[in-house]
Amino acid sequence: MSLDRVLDRIDADLPEATERLLALLRIPSISTDPAYAIECQKAADWLVEDLKSIGFQADKRQTPGHPMVVGHADGPEDKPHLMFYGHYDVQPVDPLDLWDNPPFEPALEDTSAGQVIRGRGSSDDKGQLMTFVEACRAWIAVNGSLPARISLFFEGEEESGSPSLIPFMEENRDELTTDIALICDTGLFESKTPAIITQLRGMSCEDFTITGPDRDLHSGMYGGIAMNPIRILTRILADLHDDTGRITLPGFYDGVEELTDDIRAQWQGLGFDHASFLADVGLKTPAGEEDRMPIEMIWSRPTCDVNGIWGGYTGDGFKTVLPSQASAKVSFRLVGKQDPDAVRDSFRSYLESRLPDGFTVEYRTEKGSPAAQIATENALFEQAREALGEEWGIPAAFAGCGGSIPIAGYFKDILGVDAMLIGFGKDDDNIHSPNEKYDLESFHKGIRSWARILDKLA
Amino acid sequence: MSLDRVLDRIDADLPEATERLLALLRIPSISTDPAYAIECQKAADWLVEDLKSIGFQADKRQTPGHPMVVGHADGPEDKPHLMFYGHYDVQPVDPLDLWDNPPFEPALEDTSAGQVIRGRGSSDDKGQLMTFVEACRAWIAVNGSLPARISLFFEGEEESGSPSLIPFMEENRDELTTDIALICDTGLFESKTPAIITQLRGMSCEDFTITGPDRDLHSGMYGGIAMNPIRILTRILADLHDDTGRITLPGFYDGVEELTDDIRAQWQGLGFDHASFLADVGLKTPAGEEDRMPIEMIWSRPTCDVNGIWGGYTGDGFKTVLPSQASAKVSFRLVGKQDPDAVRDSFRSYLESRLPDGFTVEYRTEKGSPAAQIATENALFEQAREALGEEWGIPAAFAGCGGSIPIAGYFKDILGVDAMLIGFGKDDDNIHSPNEKYDLESFHKGIRSWARILDKLA
Repeated sequence: MSLDRVLDRIDADLPEATERLLALLRIPSISTDPAYAIECQKAADWLVEDLKSIGFQADKRQTPGHPMVVGHADGPEDKPHLMFYGHYDVQPVDPLDLWDNPPFEPALEDTSAGQVIRGRGSSDDKGQLMTFVEACRAWIAVNGSLPARISLFFEGEEESGSPSLIPFMEENRDELTTDIALICDTGLFESKTPAIITQLRGMSCEDFTITGPDRDLHSGMYGGIAMNPIRILTRILADLHDDTGRITLPGFYDGVEELTDDIRAQWQGLGFDHASFLADVGLKTPAGEEDRMPIEMIWSRPTCDVNGIWGGYTGDGFKTVLPSQASAKVSFRLVGKQDPDAVRDSFRSYLESRLPDGFTVEYRTEKGSPAAQIATENALFEQAREALGEEWGIPAAFAGCGGSIPIAGYFKDILGVDAMLIGFGKDDDNIHSPNEKYDLESFHKGIRSWARILDKLA
Repeated sequence: MSLDRVLDRIDADLPEATERLLALLRIPSISTDPAYAIECQKAADWLVEDLKSIGFQADKRQTPGHPMVVGHADGPEDKPHLMFYGHYDVQPVDPLDLWDNPPFEPALEDTSAGQVIRGRGSSDDKGQLMTFVEACRAWIAVNGSLPARISLFFEGEEESGSPSLIPFMEENRDELTTDIALICDTGLFESKTPAIITQLRGMSCEDFTITGPDRDLHSGMYGGIAMNPIRILTRILADLHDDTGRITLPGFYDGVEELTDDIRAQWQGLGFDHASFLADVGLKTPAGEEDRMPIEMIWSRPTCDVNGIWGGYTGDGFKTVLPSQASAKVSFRLVGKQDPDAVRDSFRSYLESRLPDGFTVEYRTEKGSPAAQIATENALFEQAREALGEEWGIPAAFAGCGGSIPIAGYFKDILGVDAMLIGFGKDDDNIHSPNEKYDLESFHKGIRSWARILDKLA
């Protein structure tokens, strides 16, 4: 059977596949820092050459920012046309002194938990991206061609807000429209269960400063009579949650949907261990709405968190200042059909209604994004789930994801293409942090998973 | 009459008196910065020499920190022995770029509101300190000696927490014990009415950090289920006041006394304009307890203010971090017989009772001080009040002061000496800020005020 031969080939080729990934990891393609723009070009060039060597038609497409890489390979016309998306850019590496080895001198390392590929981008997202490329390479090596038409779409701005993405998708709509999009930028559930992410939370953010007195005051002279902006701010923020953990903004829960019985049963079946999930980060009790399953709090309930707060004197010692200003950054994770603009409007009305006469507020606006609820009716979802279960020996889950991955929504909204989010990262991969790694197991079984998925889908 | 001749002498000598003050202001005696320790020695030396030139026995007394200056001059044994206290050290000058002229190149400046002496320390406290020295100089010049025994006690650590003060007072108890202590480190009421401060608020401070998760978390992964320390902190701080502006800590108001009818009537008679007091700093409505006179809020009611707050990401842009820690600096202004230690204990119990299981708090301790309620039964108070009224042409007030001036309490507690706080600063003197100034009127009429007070008291 040809799948077995492909899997054997993957196993045999693993050392070479690892070397190829290490070569890509050596290119410091940090997208957010203009000093590394040339490195982003180099990473794109490296991918174009590698894809061509397998047999893809591939080229680099310039944008106002970093280039896109697009590749196509022929396959049977009667099979679904598959798109694969990944990103070759990486996060900055600060603080450098917390890295045990230089971030762009990647290496295969032995650890007590097995071999890991260490280096910036190893998990997010070069390692994940290459799992699919390696699966295609093995398939072609064994069979001479792919089992379906496959297009590849690699972005170089994912870690810097993807400014060129939407225009590029709109300008290349026909070329990028396929039967399904496969996206490899997520993780295993609890680092062991393969998962297809079907619910992604959206986001609405507000960064603001409230001003009371027109200068900093001395609390000896003004304390008691002059209203302190920190007092106003803490009250506004404290009252965003009621005693049961619900968010109090009027209309906030509009568009939040209850879980279907089916999904609820499946999630209950995952046996999520919330106590150890919290204990891993030093916490004891969950913080969400008191009547919700912990897994629901993360995947399918909206949240409100203060991500930053500052005001007054914050240095060593004490100054009895009554400050002129107090500031905060507040973000809302959104689910279902919650409208980011409506949430923002409700927050602003709430905030402004609680400012004393004479106080002002200044907003530093950030763009919001709605949640993505991925319809799983497409039969390809069930086939992929089976393939994953066969590789990992554990039934795969349709899981939620607490974060926001806007690309999934763009495929649906701009191209009308369902996105299937499958990834092999683990919770301890340190993505966006020092000492990023990707388990060799994630890489190896990731490649094998894609081979199995290609076999099922085609 | 000899007082008139003394006042004439003061008027005639004002240009020279101003020059002497400018000379003292040129010495950058910043006590909090060890780099300026030698300048504190120089300022003390300058004072010793100046006092000797008038006829005082004066010397510099070393301490583990900056030196004290102590001086004595004889006078009739049957008159009250007077002590005068001031401090020759000054605040740091940051931010330097906000000064129109270098802070230690003082000058007499013409402004639309009259002549001012501009420079660091001009008001706080070198200019105020010199008002008394100049009054003594004029008195001796005219009469050959002083009308009473006078001791002088100048400190060089007032702006850096006075670490040597209490030990020095205890070690020199006999030498420093007099019939009354005159302290010149306060201001005119509303910049125009002479005032003797008889109520000073005390202080209890708490600088603390609460820790929840043992590291910063990503709100995509943990938002909803993990409790955010900023949420806990804002709730703790917000609930310190109820809707009427009262402070909610159990037992907080223990020891807070109501105004006597006498004081209430006197304060009502001051015609304090709270609307313009607030409007001067851009505010519209008072913030204190809703059933209190505004002047009462500042002078005789306890307060709670958050002087600083920080946590999470506070830089440009947005990071959806769920931080491990959140911190604040909270201070309580105390009145009457409130016990700073009891207030601290109540705050800590309150705070800790509201931490979720698993959260911890770390305190960075600051010493508290009780309020000072100065008994005005001593006949010298009424005599000084009369003298001030004669100089300024407005009846002088027994006023409160929102701040804390611990020295007044030390004179009473350590030496058993009543302290009389009389000063000539104005609200716009910019003490502790760039462009500090002292009105020439404050300096001139301040000197004349002390001459009149000496005349009355002796």
